[in-house]
Amino acid sequence: MKLTIERAALLKALGHVQAVVERRNTIPILSNVLINANGQHMRLTATDLDTEIVEEAPAHVERAGIVTAPAHTLYEIARKLPEGADVTLQMAGDDPRLQLSAGRSRFNLPALPAGDFPVMPTEDLATSFTLPAAAFARLIDKTRFAISTEETRYYLNGIHLHAAERDGRKTLRAVATDGHRLALAETDLPSGAEGMPAVIVPRKPIQELRRLLEDVDDEIRVQVSEGKIRFELGAAVLTSKLIDGTFPDYERVIPRGNDKIMKVDRAPFAQAVDRVATISQEKSRSIKLTVSDSTLVLAVNNPESGTASEELHADYSSSEIVIGFNARYLLDVAAQIAGDEAMFEFADSGSPTRVTDSGDPDAEYVLMPLRV
Amino acid sequence: MKLTIERAALLKALGHVQAVVERRNTIPILSNVLINANGQHMRLTATDLDTEIVEEAPAHVERAGIVTAPAHTLYEIARKLPEGADVTLQMAGDDPRLQLSAGRSRFNLPALPAGDFPVMPTEDLATSFTLPAAAFARLIDKTRFAISTEETRYYLNGIHLHAAERDGRKTLRAVATDGHRLALAETDLPSGAEGMPAVIVPRKPIQELRRLLEDVDDEIRVQVSEGKIRFELGAAVLTSKLIDGTFPDYERVIPRGNDKIMKVDRAPFAQAVDRVATISQEKSRSIKLTVSDSTLVLAVNNPESGTASEELHADYSSSEIVIGFNARYLLDVAAQIAGDEAMFEFADSGSPTRVTDSGDPDAEYVLMPLRV
Repeated sequence: MKLTIERAALLKALGHVQAVVERRNTIPILSNVLINANGQHMRLTATDLDTEIVEEAPAHVERAGIVTAPAHTLYEIARKLPEGADVTLQMAGDDPRLQLSAGRSRFNLPALPAGDFPVMPTEDLATSFTLPAAAFARLIDKTRFAISTEETRYYLNGIHLHAAERDGRKTLRAVATDGHRLALAETDLPSGAEGMPAVIVPRKPIQELRRLLEDVDDEIRVQVSEGKIRFELGAAVLTSKLIDGTFPDYERVIPRGNDKIMKVDRAPFAQAVDRVATISQEKSRSIKLTVSDSTLVLAVNNPESGTASEELHADYSSSEIVIGFNARYLLDVAAQIAGDEAMFEFADSGSPTRVTDSGDPDAEYVLMPLRV
Repeated sequence: MKLTIERAALLKALGHVQAVVERRNTIPILSNVLINANGQHMRLTATDLDTEIVEEAPAHVERAGIVTAPAHTLYEIARKLPEGADVTLQMAGDDPRLQLSAGRSRFNLPALPAGDFPVMPTEDLATSFTLPAAAFARLIDKTRFAISTEETRYYLNGIHLHAAERDGRKTLRAVATDGHRLALAETDLPSGAEGMPAVIVPRKPIQELRRLLEDVDDEIRVQVSEGKIRFELGAAVLTSKLIDGTFPDYERVIPRGNDKIMKVDRAPFAQAVDRVATISQEKSRSIKLTVSDSTLVLAVNNPESGTASEELHADYSSSEIVIGFNARYLLDVAAQIAGDEAMFEFADSGSPTRVTDSGDPDAEYVLMPLRV
C-alpha cells in the first residue's frame, strides 16, 4: 500500500472516525483504524463493535492495499502536522509497520493485519429515507438530555425513534426518558419512513451522530432495520446496533389533560431557577414552585446551606399549586425551549407536569414532581 | 450589619478572595469569607491558614458590622445575579443568618461569628518595594512550570525569590527547580529590595498571585520578612507564609561554560518536538536529539508505539552530540522563549544543558539529560 493525502483531508476523515474508538481496549485491534487504499480514495473504518464509522477521503493511491494502525496516534500526528502538508502512508517490503511521512517528519507505527479487523456485517436495512441534517440534529438536541444512564434499565439508554401520528399528521418522533422526566420531539415523517420499525438508538452513537452532523449542511440518509441503523452524513457513514429491548409505553405518561396552565418567560425563569438552585442539596437539587395569581415563587430550603427564594411574574389564573422539581431538570428543559415562553401544565403536586414551548409546537416535556 | 453594594463590585472582590478557600475544610469557618462593613467599604477576607487575601470594595454601609458566610456560595450567587443589580447584605434582629437580597431574589445563608475567623497576625515586614505588575508576572511565568510537586522536597515546592547580582548588575531573581530542570528569570532590583531576605514562595499563593495580576495594570507593592510575604495588587492584598527551608545552591547547577552551542528557531522546534513526542512513552516522554553540522534530528523510539523522527535546520558547528530529554520539559521551556531563537549550550550527553532565549537575556533554563 502506498498513498498520499492532503493533511486537511486526512485530519477531517480521521477526526470523524477515531472518536468511536475507545481509549482502553482489551482487544488490541479495536484501537486501530482500518485503512483501505483503492482507486482515488482511502477509506477509513473505526469501530467499538457496536458502532462503526466509515469515511472516504480523496487520495493519490500509488499502490492499493489495506492495513490497520492505531487510530488515536494517527489522529494526533495528523493534528500536529503543519497546515498544507502532504502525508504519505505506506507499507514497504517486509516491514510490518506503517510508515507515515510528511515534510521532514517520519513515523513508523505498529500495524495489524486488516484481516483481523472486525467489520460490521452488512445486512438488509429495509427502510430508507432522507431528511435535513438540521431536522435530525433538532430531534437529538431536544431529547438526549433525558436519556437514562441507569444500566439496569438498558431499554432507556437511548433515543426511541419511530414513526408516529399526532392529530392525523404523520411524524418521525424521538423520545427519551429516565423515569424522572421525558422529552419528545417530532418532525414531518420523511417519505419512505412509513413502515420503519420502532427502534432505540443507544447513547454513544447519538453523541457521535450529533458531532458528525456539525459538518453536514444538507440532507442525511437514514436506513434502518430491526437490529441496526445506518446514517449517511456527507462522506461519513455511521452504522450502529440498536438496543434490543422494548421502550415503555410513554404515551400513558404524558398528561395531555392537565388544566392548570402557567406561562413564564423562558430566560428570566431559567436564570431564577439557576440562582435559587445555588443552595439546593447536591443530590436532590430540589426546588419548590408556588404558583398563584400571576405570580411564581421559586424556593429552596436546605438545612445545611440556608434558604433562597425568588418571585417571578407568571401568566396563571387557576387555584394555587405548590409543586417540587429537580432544578437540573427544569434547567435542561428551559435550555431546549426555542420560544420566549415556556408553558407548564400542572394537575396537582403529586402528578406529572407537561411543559411545552411557545416556539416549537413539535416538542413536549414531562417532569415528575418531587415531594417538597 | 447592613450594606448595599453593586453586584459588579461584589463579584470582583469575591472573585479575588474566594479562590484561596479550599473546597473541603475540616474547620467549617475556613469555608467562609469574613465580611467587615465599615465606613464606605466592605472588606472581604478569605484564608486557607497559609495564604490570606483581603480586598476592599466601595459599599453603602447603613449599619457597620462584621460576620462570616460561605465564600463559594456567596460568589456563585453574585455570579448568577443580573448585571447592574444592587445587592443588600444584612444581619437582622436575632436571626443568626446572613440575609442577601437583590431585585426579587432573597437568600438566607448560614453565618458564623467573625470572632472565630482566623485572621493572619500582622507582623513587621521590614523590606518593602514596588515593581510593575507585568515584571512580576514575567518572573512567575518564566519559572513556575519548574516548581517541584514532590512533597518530600518541600523546599522546592515554590519559587525562590531573592536579591542577586549578575555581572555587577543588581537583580530581583526568581528560580524554580524540580531537580530535573531549573528555570531562572530576573529583573532590575527595585529600590528598597536590596536587603530583602531570600525566600521561597509556595506554589498556591504563586497561582493566586498570577490570577490577581491579571487585573492589575500598574505597580504592585511587595513587603517581605523571613516568614511572610505580602503583595498589594490594586484593591487586593495577598499575604502568605513562606516555605521554611533552604533552597539549594542552584548556581552550582547552571553550566555557564558549555561550549557546544546550537541555535534553533523556536516555533519549528517546539512543533517538531510536539509531533515526535506523540509516540513517546507516557512516563519518561523521552526524546533523542542528534545535533551535527547544521542539522538537528529529533527521534523517539518506543517499543510499544513505534518510531518517529524529524530533521530540523540548526545553527551548529561543534562535534556531533547525541542527548536525550523529556519532551514535556523541552516544550515547557520553548513555551517561555520570547525571541525567535532558542540557544542550547551542551557539554556532553550526560551533563546539564543550558538554554537561553534570544529575546530575553534575563531568563535561563537548565535541563538534565535522560539516558537514551
